[in-house]
Amino acid sequence: MPEGLACLRAAATRYNIDIQLDDKFGDWATCARYAREGAMLPDGWKDVLASYDAIYFGAVGDPSVVPDHTSLWGSLIQFRREFDQYVNLRPCRLMPGIRCPLADKKVGDIDFWVVRENTEGEYSSLGGHMFPGTEREFVIQETVMTRIGVDRILDYAFKLAASRPKKHLTSATKSNGISISMPYWDTRVAEMGKKFPDVEVDKYHIDILTAWFVLRPEIFDVVVGSNLFGDILSDLGPACTGSIGIAPSGNINPEGKWPSLFEPVHGSAPDIAGKGIANPIGMIWAGQMMLEHFGYKEAADGVMRAIEQALEHGGEDVLTPDIGGKGTTKGLGAYVAGLIAK
Amino acid sequence: MPEGLACLRAAATRYNIDIQLDDKFGDWATCARYAREGAMLPDGWKDVLASYDAIYFGAVGDPSVVPDHTSLWGSLIQFRREFDQYVNLRPCRLMPGIRCPLADKKVGDIDFWVVRENTEGEYSSLGGHMFPGTEREFVIQETVMTRIGVDRILDYAFKLAASRPKKHLTSATKSNGISISMPYWDTRVAEMGKKFPDVEVDKYHIDILTAWFVLRPEIFDVVVGSNLFGDILSDLGPACTGSIGIAPSGNINPEGKWPSLFEPVHGSAPDIAGKGIANPIGMIWAGQMMLEHFGYKEAADGVMRAIEQALEHGGEDVLTPDIGGKGTTKGLGAYVAGLIAK
Ligand SMILES: CC(C)[C@H](C(=O)O)[C@@H](O)C(=O)O
Ligand SMILES: CC(C)[C@H](C(=O)O)[C@@H](O)C(=O)O
Repeated sequence: MPEGLACLRAAATRYNIDIQLDDKFGDWATCARYAREGAMLPDGWKDVLASYDAIYFGAVGDPSVVPDHTSLWGSLIQFRREFDQYVNLRPCRLMPGIRCPLADKKVGDIDFWVVRENTEGEYSSLGGHMFPGTEREFVIQETVMTRIGVDRILDYAFKLAASRPKKHLTSATKSNGISISMPYWDTRVAEMGKKFPDVEVDKYHIDILTAWFVLRPEIFDVVVGSNLFGDILSDLGPACTGSIGIAPSGNINPEGKWPSLFEPVHGSAPDIAGKGIANPIGMIWAGQMMLEHFGYKEAADGVMRAIEQALEHGGEDVLTPDIGGKGTTKGLGAYVAGLIAK
Repeated sequence: MPEGLACLRAAATRYNIDIQLDDKFGDWATCARYAREGAMLPDGWKDVLASYDAIYFGAVGDPSVVPDHTSLWGSLIQFRREFDQYVNLRPCRLMPGIRCPLADKKVGDIDFWVVRENTEGEYSSLGGHMFPGTEREFVIQETVMTRIGVDRILDYAFKLAASRPKKHLTSATKSNGISISMPYWDTRVAEMGKKFPDVEVDKYHIDILTAWFVLRPEIFDVVVGSNLFGDILSDLGPACTGSIGIAPSGNINPEGKWPSLFEPVHGSAPDIAGKGIANPIGMIWAGQMMLEHFGYKEAADGVMRAIEQALEHGGEDVLTPDIGGKGTTKGLGAYVAGLIAK
């Protein structure tokens, strides 16, 4: 987080942007707070945070202190819902200097976005448990898709696709097996497509779509999916580019009625906490996404260039161990901040 | 299919097994029949097929004649349900001579099974559509997991893991996001684990699990998942080994009360139908799985060796175009059958 803030400050100075960074929330949404006060967040958190434009969020979780379920539902997931951050957006991009787990791919080959519905779908709390503890026991969990919920995520995804050179949208479905919700999703995709005649749309069932992520990731431009399918694809995509440890994630309320949230995709990595070797690129890249989201294109491009240059030319002494170097969090962060400032 | 049958016959002769292959059903479950008679199967199909031990099933579908949904639900999916084939079993195995899409993997590195629940879970027909055509429209689709359904697939998966040298079972879950069905699944895994103290169990959330399939497929031995998660993993796994065009799939009723069904994973590939260049290995390997399922271990091993030898040494003239050769379906099939007979 300090490295991410330093890079944001460097970008603000260099590109002359007035960003007010309030870093007094360091203790919020931490497991340490939970251990002390029995809650991840203080009372009244919503009103306080609602007055900001965005939340720049570090990785949460320390399962030795608080179960992940508690820490995540008490912070990240709660923000997504309470602030109606209905878009989860993640880049899948092959970066210079990063080892790609797929054979024979080079920088430029893979460059697409996953757009995930972030508030409804398979993540609902409707359902129940019948005859518990007996042989006839069963559970039901309901997937809920609303016209409003589906249409607004599709609208976002179509607009994003329309803004890109390839203008190509892929919809993740499973209407050949899941017979009510997924055909409905398909119908809304077809309907929305009529409003965006320039966008080429295709759909894949989620099973074969995951296969294509591995076999031909070059073909994707923007991929849109339900909460669960988007969740899967937005881990698989970064995994396929080797960037799961450095990619960012935006949880966006496009209308700006509520704050959006930008975070690294990676978790809190308790195994290396405190060692000073965590890779700060995910956090910095999350800041880059935030700049881009608010329309500071020049600054966002500058930060992106700095990240790419650092990964390509930083060398062993600067890069962190996870990407083959022996550098430190501080060292790599300072290096990127220096490149931004130049 | 003719190549698959020839290989089964060669194995029966060579290993002296009495297999009765009834090939009079060539017209069943075809789109041609649907076009002619309005149904994929004749009346009374269930009684007829129920008297057999197994169904050796070719790829179905010709979307230019019948929508896939109709042809699949009218055949394959119906068999799975009516014959209570509650296990779907698929090998993920790096084969000699097959290009692996993952970097730096060699034969032997990847060799695991995906066990998928095949009758309930996310594929239920429960749910509905409210306020259709209006702004407040929504759909609900219910995932159903029963004690009986979950326990029997776990029992199968644990037994399979226990029978293998590594004795390692991975459970696919999403209990951090899907709050009723998936925690129930986890509870049953923990409960079943007590009966198999020798089996090492771990669980991964489906999002990160798909990432590990790409990043470290070596770590898996047996992976078990719900109907949807198993569906995804059993396409992704073969994709990661480059074998999605040649892998088989078993739809199994373990008690043998009903016939089990063995099929290739690949679809019907209408684009090359009739050209004589489809790769017959998926069909032959499905036969191999069938032999193994019925306990003909020596014969199954023999067919497997023949497949491996053909892939490794068949050469350009024998291998089909999809795997880099310029051979034909007939040629490759005859080559494998010849190796089996030797
Ligand atoms: C065709 C489809 C309904 C089917 C499934 O999802 O079960 C297929 O993907 C499979 O895995 O056999
Ligand atoms: C922690 C978990 C509930 C969360 C999700 O599934 O949404 C995570 O996987 C993510 O993608 O941010």
